Amino acid sequence: MAPSKHKVKINVDLGEGYGNFKCGPDEELIPLIDHANVACGFHAGDPLIMQQTVRLCAQHSVAVGAHPGLPDIQGFGRREIKMTPEELTAMTRYQIGALQAFLDAEGIPLHHVKPHGVLYGMMYRDAEVCRAVYAAVPKGVPVFGLAGTVQERVAREMGLGFVAELYGDVKYNEDGTLVIDRKKKPWTPEETRAHVTSQVYEGAVTAVTGEKVDLPLGEYEVSLCCHSDSPGCMEIVKASRAIVDEFNAKTFS
Amino acid sequence: MAPSKHKVKINVDLGEGYGNFKCGPDEELIPLIDHANVACGFHAGDPLIMQQTVRLCAQHSVAVGAHPGLPDIQGFGRREIKMTPEELTAMTRYQIGALQAFLDAEGIPLHHVKPHGVLYGMMYRDAEVCRAVYAAVPKGVPVFGLAGTVQERVAREMGLGFVAELYGDVKYNEDGTLVIDRKKKPWTPEETRAHVTSQVYEGAVTAVTGEKVDLPLGEYEVSLCCHSDSPGCMEIVKASRAIVDEFNAKTFS
Amino acid sequence: MAPSKHKVKINVDLGEGYGNFKCGPDEELIPLIDHANVACGFHAGDPLIMQQTVRLCAQHSVAVGAHPGLPDIQGFGRREIKMTPEELTAMTRYQIGALQAFLDAEGIPLHHVKPHGVLYGMMYRDAEVCRAVYAAVPKGVPVFGLAGTVQERVAREMGLGFVAELYGDVKYNEDGTLVIDRKKKPWTPEETRAHVTSQVYEGAVTAVTGEKVDLPLGEYEVSLCCHSDSPGCMEIVKASRAIVDEFNAKTFS
Amino acid sequence: MAPSKHKVKINVDLGEGYGNFKCGPDEELIPLIDHANVACGFHAGDPLIMQQTVRLCAQHSVAVGAHPGLPDIQGFGRREIKMTPEELTAMTRYQIGALQAFLDAEGIPLHHVKPHGVLYGMMYRDAEVCRAVYAAVPKGVPVFGLAGTVQERVAREMGLGFVAELYGDVKYNEDGTLVIDRKKKPWTPEETRAHVTSQVYEGAVTAVTGEKVDLPLGEYEVSLCCHSDSPGCMEIVKASRAIVDEFNAKTFS
Repeated sequence: MAPSKHKVKINVDLGEGYGNFKCGPDEELIPLIDHANVACGFHAGDPLIMQQTVRLCAQHSVAVGAHPGLPDIQGFGRREIKMTPEELTAMTRYQIGALQAFLDAEGIPLHHVKPHGVLYGMMYRDAEVCRAVYAAVPKGVPVFGLAGTVQERVAREMGLGFVAELYGDVKYNEDGTLVIDRKKKPWTPEETRAHVTSQVYEGAVTAVTGEKVDLPLGEYEVSLCCHSDSPGCMEIVKASRAIVDEFNAKTFS
Repeated sequence: MAPSKHKVKINVDLGEGYGNFKCGPDEELIPLIDHANVACGFHAGDPLIMQQTVRLCAQHSVAVGAHPGLPDIQGFGRREIKMTPEELTAMTRYQIGALQAFLDAEGIPLHHVKPHGVLYGMMYRDAEVCRAVYAAVPKGVPVFGLAGTVQERVAREMGLGFVAELYGDVKYNEDGTLVIDRKKKPWTPEETRAHVTSQVYEGAVTAVTGEKVDLPLGEYEVSLCCHSDSPGCMEIVKASRAIVDEFNAKTFS
Repeated sequence: MAPSKHKVKINVDLGEGYGNFKCGPDEELIPLIDHANVACGFHAGDPLIMQQTVRLCAQHSVAVGAHPGLPDIQGFGRREIKMTPEELTAMTRYQIGALQAFLDAEGIPLHHVKPHGVLYGMMYRDAEVCRAVYAAVPKGVPVFGLAGTVQERVAREMGLGFVAELYGDVKYNEDGTLVIDRKKKPWTPEETRAHVTSQVYEGAVTAVTGEKVDLPLGEYEVSLCCHSDSPGCMEIVKASRAIVDEFNAKTFS
Repeated sequence: MAPSKHKVKINVDLGEGYGNFKCGPDEELIPLIDHANVACGFHAGDPLIMQQTVRLCAQHSVAVGAHPGLPDIQGFGRREIKMTPEELTAMTRYQIGALQAFLDAEGIPLHHVKPHGVLYGMMYRDAEVCRAVYAAVPKGVPVFGLAGTVQERVAREMGLGFVAELYGDVKYNEDGTLVIDRKKKPWTPEETRAHVTSQVYEGAVTAVTGEKVDLPLGEYEVSLCCHSDSPGCMEIVKASRAIVDEFNAKTFS
């Protein structure tokens, strides 16, 4: 159990509305974060929202990553769909390409790829799914994932850059994987602070089963994820920002 | 009324199936054509079909263009949908970007952009729609369109390359625009031959109203379009290929 | 210009969320209204939301009508789509039937049919569209529409029951039709009160162009519509409820 | 192993096109079948196709059942999607209701409910899924399913009528369940004849693993299913019709 060797950054999913439906206070969140995972139209987002979100990120110098999901707006990418590896590669490639066009229009690069929701979970449970998704990642672009899981192993195996994620508003299983809900549950500020502090300062987290779980961050860059659709997300992100900033100042100054 | 100043090429819409639904004999058509307009998932096509279609085109050295359409699989992009200019730009950019990712994966360039179906028609009827769609075309990539219409005028105005299209299997109105049906009607081989010959050799066509209509090809490169969902499309394409090849041989050898 | 001959009721669109996306405070609105127009999955709503919304209405004894819309979740049924009359009939029939199944499961009847968004507008602008939609309405079920427009004329022509609508949060054109926006704009409480009072007490409204416009309510039953996606919708509905209750008490006691 | 106690009927999935995409020779098939399973718009079918298909069935006195599927046109209802029981009930109810509206318009009753594709398979693998789907079946309407599996057990448990299915063009596993492919594979006429004859005359079938498997038809009515998207479907249905007619004539005259 060791803390991050790099300054910890914060990533948030953005652009997860759809048409008239809003999801999350994107404009308020942007000044607080380092990395945006922008939805690519399959689980959320539509072309207009993507265009506006990428523009907003460019204006605030937030690094933009692709946030591809399963093709399921209704289920918000949180219902498992069984797809073949070739389909998974194709749908991921499609989404990354779509986002790339908006990045090109704003003149900013693709910073990373972070799969969304249950797809992310399927990837650490099934190396074949993981390989299929990663096969669509353009050369030189790192993936965000969970250190110590299949995601890390496959990324290394395929020669992809890897950024280790921490989670500000998601609980962990005892194997270091995440507990995914279709709809997010509320957190108290104390819960959030304890959850984030332990991950950032110790590289460890208390699982839902009660065990202390090691998060093997190693030499990876680290980004802490918060969700814009969590109840009370602004408080979670502000609390996380404060903890992360203090950690970064203490550790790397 | 003057014939093409360049060798006439042939373009066909490819990859217009969806999931298990097939549309058109793509494999048989590919050896007969020069340019493929590949559907981008909005009016037809899905990521897997796009991936396979681009690969097939790469193998046969067919130049690939993006074929963006209105977001309407059920209507096959042939039902008019009123969208704002910003939406039109965003949805076109999205589709072109998605296709670009498959082209990058095969290492071939984006050759052109040709909007699909009723969107194509909306563009020559409404300069604002045309400008909104063309605003999404990446620099240096030409558009396919109808010479003598708003499409040509807007493309020149915006500094875009322009390839003038002829139509092997679509009838013309007296103003040089096209008669669009939701489902294609059958042609006799004689009708096809007369229709194509007149366009290629004379730069003119007989409209549905009976008038001979000038197609002002000027100095533009020319590509004759045939549709893969036309009844008897193989015969139409073969007949067109023969006429075009003879014209090219006679005129440019 | 004459006030309603019947107690004025209030109708609101409900169940207009989609998957995880919420739209409007349905639970808070239900105790304040008489009629619910329940979205049927084409412009908003999904089976689960429909099931829950119908159950909620049954529990609160709110009469449930079908609220069919154009097939366009992304555009929230507010982008015009050109469909054939046969398609319009079929898609309306489909949506009404889907809702009916949830009503059957709760043991409550279908109270009315009220088309949504731009479809509603297309119907008073085009009698053919109106006829096509009304052709799908089951026998004995009335439609909600604008008195004095094509909607009323076609309903009479086809022998359908008709309930005249007033609009608490939508402005009128000088011909008595509505000004439709893709996203609703905010109203001040004073604007709302003046707008509603004039309609309820005078059977008239001030159009956006400034003219006083007659709303020929005649002998029809009357229902005042408020929208759950309007900014400040709770205030609008509460204000409307108060005005309507006072009018009903004064006039019919 | 005992043959059917009732005349064997034939059922086919109809109306499984989508928009311009056709699927199967519905017009040719209809005169050859007894029961149609009409797609309800989720895995295939759209309102217009449903309307036309139901009308065609009414004209040919073919009994119409609902054929609800998972919400996945792109995957043709053949990609497993994990949904909650409440979602499964709601989406099945929605689809049955939608079909019911077209039946009402033609004045014919809902004959049965037969879930489609992978949903059918999920139901015999998971009693909870089965119960959730069957919960949406209107009172008095029987379900089609596999005798000897969870489907039969749950139908009995819930007091639903049950029609035992045989399969003309799908292979069986050794537990009497089906081998489902995303795209159907071709059969030789001899294979089809042997496969159908054994089921009809013996109430048994040779599984893909080679064992003879008992199909416990008991006292149930029996309907043999053929698929309209099978390669060579007309030959399969004609062969099945001949075998079934001969069996019925021999056994019940």
